[in-house]
Amino acid sequence: MTAPAPKKVVLAYSGGLDTSIILKWLQTEYGCEVVTFTADLGQGEELEPARKKAELLGIKSENIHIEDLREEFVRDFVFPMFRANALYEGLYLLGTSIARPLIAKRLAEIAAETGADAVAHGATGKGNDQVRFELGVAALNPALKVIAPWRLWDLTSRTKLLEFAEANQIPIAKDKRGEAPFSVDANLLHTSSEGKVLENPAEEAPAYVYQRTVDPEAAPDRAELVEIGFERGDAVSINGERMSPATILTRLNEIGGRHGVGRLDLVENRFVGMKSRGVYETPGGTILLEAHRGIEQITLDAGAGHLKDSIMPRYAELIYNGFWFSPEREMLQALIDKSQEHVTGTVRVKLYKGSVRTVARWSDQSLYSEKHVTFEEDAGAYDQKDAEGFIRLNALRLRLVAVRNARTKG
Amino acid sequence: MTAPAPKKVVLAYSGGLDTSIILKWLQTEYGCEVVTFTADLGQGEELEPARKKAELLGIKSENIHIEDLREEFVRDFVFPMFRANALYEGLYLLGTSIARPLIAKRLAEIAAETGADAVAHGATGKGNDQVRFELGVAALNPALKVIAPWRLWDLTSRTKLLEFAEANQIPIAKDKRGEAPFSVDANLLHTSSEGKVLENPAEEAPAYVYQRTVDPEAAPDRAELVEIGFERGDAVSINGERMSPATILTRLNEIGGRHGVGRLDLVENRFVGMKSRGVYETPGGTILLEAHRGIEQITLDAGAGHLKDSIMPRYAELIYNGFWFSPEREMLQALIDKSQEHVTGTVRVKLYKGSVRTVARWSDQSLYSEKHVTFEEDAGAYDQKDAEGFIRLNALRLRLVAVRNARTKG
Amino acid sequence: MTAPAPKKVVLAYSGGLDTSIILKWLQTEYGCEVVTFTADLGQGEELEPARKKAELLGIKSENIHIEDLREEFVRDFVFPMFRANALYEGLYLLGTSIARPLIAKRLAEIAAETGADAVAHGATGKGNDQVRFELGVAALNPALKVIAPWRLWDLTSRTKLLEFAEANQIPIAKDKRGEAPFSVDANLLHTSSEGKVLENPAEEAPAYVYQRTVDPEAAPDRAELVEIGFERGDAVSINGERMSPATILTRLNEIGGRHGVGRLDLVENRFVGMKSRGVYETPGGTILLEAHRGIEQITLDAGAGHLKDSIMPRYAELIYNGFWFSPEREMLQALIDKSQEHVTGTVRVKLYKGSVRTVARWSDQSLYSEKHVTFEEDAGAYDQKDAEGFIRLNALRLRLVAVRNARTKG
Amino acid sequence: MTAPAPKKVVLAYSGGLDTSIILKWLQTEYGCEVVTFTADLGQGEELEPARKKAELLGIKSENIHIEDLREEFVRDFVFPMFRANALYEGLYLLGTSIARPLIAKRLAEIAAETGADAVAHGATGKGNDQVRFELGVAALNPALKVIAPWRLWDLTSRTKLLEFAEANQIPIAKDKRGEAPFSVDANLLHTSSEGKVLENPAEEAPAYVYQRTVDPEAAPDRAELVEIGFERGDAVSINGERMSPATILTRLNEIGGRHGVGRLDLVENRFVGMKSRGVYETPGGTILLEAHRGIEQITLDAGAGHLKDSIMPRYAELIYNGFWFSPEREMLQALIDKSQEHVTGTVRVKLYKGSVRTVARWSDQSLYSEKHVTFEEDAGAYDQKDAEGFIRLNALRLRLVAVRNARTKG
Repeated sequence: MTAPAPKKVVLAYSGGLDTSIILKWLQTEYGCEVVTFTADLGQGEELEPARKKAELLGIKSENIHIEDLREEFVRDFVFPMFRANALYEGLYLLGTSIARPLIAKRLAEIAAETGADAVAHGATGKGNDQVRFELGVAALNPALKVIAPWRLWDLTSRTKLLEFAEANQIPIAKDKRGEAPFSVDANLLHTSSEGKVLENPAEEAPAYVYQRTVDPEAAPDRAELVEIGFERGDAVSINGERMSPATILTRLNEIGGRHGVGRLDLVENRFVGMKSRGVYETPGGTILLEAHRGIEQITLDAGAGHLKDSIMPRYAELIYNGFWFSPEREMLQALIDKSQEHVTGTVRVKLYKGSVRTVARWSDQSLYSEKHVTFEEDAGAYDQKDAEGFIRLNALRLRLVAVRNARTKG
Repeated sequence: MTAPAPKKVVLAYSGGLDTSIILKWLQTEYGCEVVTFTADLGQGEELEPARKKAELLGIKSENIHIEDLREEFVRDFVFPMFRANALYEGLYLLGTSIARPLIAKRLAEIAAETGADAVAHGATGKGNDQVRFELGVAALNPALKVIAPWRLWDLTSRTKLLEFAEANQIPIAKDKRGEAPFSVDANLLHTSSEGKVLENPAEEAPAYVYQRTVDPEAAPDRAELVEIGFERGDAVSINGERMSPATILTRLNEIGGRHGVGRLDLVENRFVGMKSRGVYETPGGTILLEAHRGIEQITLDAGAGHLKDSIMPRYAELIYNGFWFSPEREMLQALIDKSQEHVTGTVRVKLYKGSVRTVARWSDQSLYSEKHVTFEEDAGAYDQKDAEGFIRLNALRLRLVAVRNARTKG
Repeated sequence: MTAPAPKKVVLAYSGGLDTSIILKWLQTEYGCEVVTFTADLGQGEELEPARKKAELLGIKSENIHIEDLREEFVRDFVFPMFRANALYEGLYLLGTSIARPLIAKRLAEIAAETGADAVAHGATGKGNDQVRFELGVAALNPALKVIAPWRLWDLTSRTKLLEFAEANQIPIAKDKRGEAPFSVDANLLHTSSEGKVLENPAEEAPAYVYQRTVDPEAAPDRAELVEIGFERGDAVSINGERMSPATILTRLNEIGGRHGVGRLDLVENRFVGMKSRGVYETPGGTILLEAHRGIEQITLDAGAGHLKDSIMPRYAELIYNGFWFSPEREMLQALIDKSQEHVTGTVRVKLYKGSVRTVARWSDQSLYSEKHVTFEEDAGAYDQKDAEGFIRLNALRLRLVAVRNARTKG
Repeated sequence: MTAPAPKKVVLAYSGGLDTSIILKWLQTEYGCEVVTFTADLGQGEELEPARKKAELLGIKSENIHIEDLREEFVRDFVFPMFRANALYEGLYLLGTSIARPLIAKRLAEIAAETGADAVAHGATGKGNDQVRFELGVAALNPALKVIAPWRLWDLTSRTKLLEFAEANQIPIAKDKRGEAPFSVDANLLHTSSEGKVLENPAEEAPAYVYQRTVDPEAAPDRAELVEIGFERGDAVSINGERMSPATILTRLNEIGGRHGVGRLDLVENRFVGMKSRGVYETPGGTILLEAHRGIEQITLDAGAGHLKDSIMPRYAELIYNGFWFSPEREMLQALIDKSQEHVTGTVRVKLYKGSVRTVARWSDQSLYSEKHVTFEEDAGAYDQKDAEGFIRLNALRLRLVAVRNARTKG
């Protein structure tokens, strides 16, 4: 593709060394105007330094966009996903995957607002994030060009990057001189670490990789009980106190983090075809998944629950692969949301040294009927003789198969 | 159904009070010959007392069948199921469900061997086990009658049962005089508890319910590492020592049990239409599931893994509902087994106060390619520029949708 | 179940001999008040004779409910189902299955309006219709009793039925004296025939079984083109003329019927466990399915279409089994309806001697891009070089598998 | 990718103008040795002219591979696929898709035999075939390079191609001077046509596009009955005469072709992201699908059939997208093949002016039980009272939902 050079580019800008280099590279490579976009998704970093750094690199102040997206992130992305109990490959809570569509959305929107003809991101050509950003942008603003410098430039080693930075007066924090021992992504849902010291899946991850959760062995010796209230599938309160979505997740992260909850060491399949090893810390999300399953247990009908479970792997795969803004994800979301109309009630979970377990749940919307299930006299709620016909008709086809097989073997 | 009375009945006989009453009831109700079948599935009880008790109730010694089925149980039922990473409703490891088909199989086989025309079991009309027994028998020996006394007799209260027992000289253990505070099923895979004190899902299960695992808070203060070896999807060794299937599960139960691993408090949907609350302890199985996922992470292709995940809920539901001996379970098993041909290698898990986590895994069959995934120079293993075309073609349809939607909105 | 006798029963009443006998039997068996409900679903019979007959059997005129439900039937049941391209077991258009929930709904509603405590139907204990009626009633008005005389009474032969009719002064049409050579169900969507002369699936159905379609060999020698307009997945016009849902289906039945379209000779699996052979005639529905697929071809995104296709068998099975009013059918409907937002446009089909084929389709909502697909110069719409990266990354995991397999075989 | 030039290339060579140009281009572009591979897959063309032409272009005779693969094609590719009743997007019988893996397999094998380091094909960069060839080759011989000249060269117009041909003494058949009005692919399963005059899906395909089937309006005025015998899911005989797989398909093509059976005009979704319009003629395959469904109707259990149906769309998509040689296709095949063990028997179909319908079927392996289904007295085979319990337990959860919903609305 030798497309014409972009004139104005919206860059997903963290303020860090890498995206600062990209910023400069865009300016020098294309001579284009750069608009920076820096979002607070709960990654736990100050954003104002990013503004300063952008200014230092010559970005006009009207071109610097800094936004607190935490509530939107949790309300419109994290919570809808948790309604599905989504787990990628059985274990991964999709903490990075679910943040990318929101960034793509804001990149596309800011491009429209500022008249930019391109967006740029700092994801490499080996990972999933490039796909997530670019599919999102394509779905939302199909005319935009996307520039992925890591797939384009010749700054293919740390040394070359640092040389470029120095040659272009980009300040380099002292701790960035040496290489980081692994790569980190963080937001309100999780912290992920991968690469370098983690690249051999046969070796246990070093303790210093974990940043958001205490080692379970260092967690409090006493278990903690937490009650989470749900309405229509979304968490709305902790221990009876009503809170906004982002506040709930923040609070659950604190609670889970101090109990060492939500650590995961995983080898997963990237969309681009290779396996990769990641270490994830999702303290609040892990609690939320457990509690959401807990409340569904009493409020969701069996047919509804089994249908949800059967489409979940596909839903999770779509999010992982970057298809949040696709017709099929929206169709699955419609199905999932429909199921959540009565998923309202409270769950009590117990946190202890790395684990979280549902221990009690109650709801006005409960479908649990003690009257039916009881071992005691049930006053006619359930006629045990019904089971005979139920079993006999379920067995009929198996019986016919058995008779046929016996007949045709002889 | 006013079928003719059975002449010879094979009874699934535990030696306990309830099945002893059933034994007597069959004799008196039908005047039929009773064959007892008592199996060691790892429930942790001596079997010889069952023989004594059967003799005492007048069963001829050639009609008393006592069998150690532990190896068959783990090899032909538990392990095939674990190849699928089966979880019912996201959480339940199917410990009871997977034992029932084996009992049904032996009931049907012993009936054929002894010329019996019926089998009998002690499951109630409210639960899943009646379905599992009877579907199994129907599939294996469709001509057999099944007698389920709990759906037939009028011994509908504890008092009546005890009266029947006394009237028929059935010895009653002292601790059976009062009612048990909950009902228990156990085998090599798990112990389940339900009913009575557990019937209110809003109340935490009392500590005394748990029988097979220590309270995580009472577990050792030091984590334990365990290495599990797999071949073609099945566990074959622990810490380098090769063992039989039943020995492996026994050993993992001991290890998991002392670390408080595998407790689950669940409200689940029974096949017969009601919700029920159970407390499960599956120490070895919980370790096995985690480790099996761990070894699949490096040895299973993404396409294979995602397909397996997508059919797993259906597979688990079939087992839960009692369809082990159905054409569709066998079809799914063929699919699953096909996937396991290279699932060979070793996983190291860490056990600590209720949790088990994979921390390392390695295999000659590994598909993990450090060369491809590395953040370092990859010597051309992967061309980052390929990602551009990959993304562009994946985005094409999304782009066409976006253009269409924009066009038709205007 | 020896439930107390019903006091007031709403009977699904056709006016025919069988339901007249049921009416009388309810009166004599329970001494209860009977409310009759007779619906026009397009079965092609006058309803007024049913009123006369009910009056003759002593039903008070305020207890006789006769309703034209054709528009509701097509709009709220047939069309939503056709949005899914539903086919049971690959072939059956569900003509009977989709009518039953509407009857169940009106039975439940009339029971509520009239203060009845039970409903009754004339379906036998071997078929699917009993399940469909009773699941529908249970879901809509769970307190209602359901009376299914065919499962209860001892009128188990034709002779006994006629004796009962004569003894109770129920008029018997002359042609009902002998037994019908097969059983028929009809509504606006289809006519189904089964039983008796059709019971041997190895014998071709006699020509006289077909009632709604001409023999293809007797159809016009000239093909006919028909254009069907769709909006959001539903047919709204024929040959440019806008019509109501029921009118469209009526018109398509006429057109299809004279071309011999929509005959199906099927052995299917009933929910109650046995196989059954049916002959179906669905002229309008067969055209509608073909045309709906035709319009989806150009307006539905690949991801959306493939997702729909993958859940269709489950959706069809739910309808066949009687679960229209279930949470999971409603969830699937939400998914399907979401997909239809842009399924708007026109399809031209060609009808000829038993077949219907899409030959052209066009739409303002089309996603078809001649610019992209053309064999001619495409002016840069599509860069063929993108395909290389696309293929290489799709191939990567296959390549890694091949290398692994080669390595571990050696 | 600036990979080193290939030394020896196996070319999928048809003998036509396009692949002759490719042959020459490979020689001139890379100076490499070219091995030609020409297969008879039933496309209905003589192969010897391809040999002559290859010789003329300087290929040594030991480098010319001409093979009759018809039996392998039908036995190992077409028949396994038909066991699944595979239809892509509800309608397409995958005639082109299923031939590509076999060509890829032979390319990879001949490359191994002849020590070639690359393969080449004549598929364009817009279609599915490039993907199918290249995924197949990657899965079978991952070290091979693949050369796709249409994605590489600058011969982007008809004029340039002809100039290249003339400049290189490639003979041009007179009828190839002008451009063909559409593009054709043919093999024993189907003939597909696309492009040029077919590019507007709103215009009916011209009559001259169809090559393998007569116009239904020109087909015989009398219907024809054909009996097809199956064993374990594969067709083995026609009208009682046993034949090899390829012979059966050839014969069914003749029969279907003269009755105008198997025409399809479709807009489909290509894997590379665009929609495309194709006209397919699959006379024998259309008969085979209908008949296979017919025999499954009586020999396949409901659970098995419904499972097969539910995974079919995914299976078809995998084949369409080129993943025949993938772990997940092999897993699905294992599932499908397992289901076919008893799919043995005979089906009678009726062919008439474009349509084919099953009218009778019989089998020693039949599961159809007239005894159970009959409207007549069934001598106790089925107890209608069983249906009551069956329905009541299926209804229980719906009832509990209804009670809950009523309660929480108030």
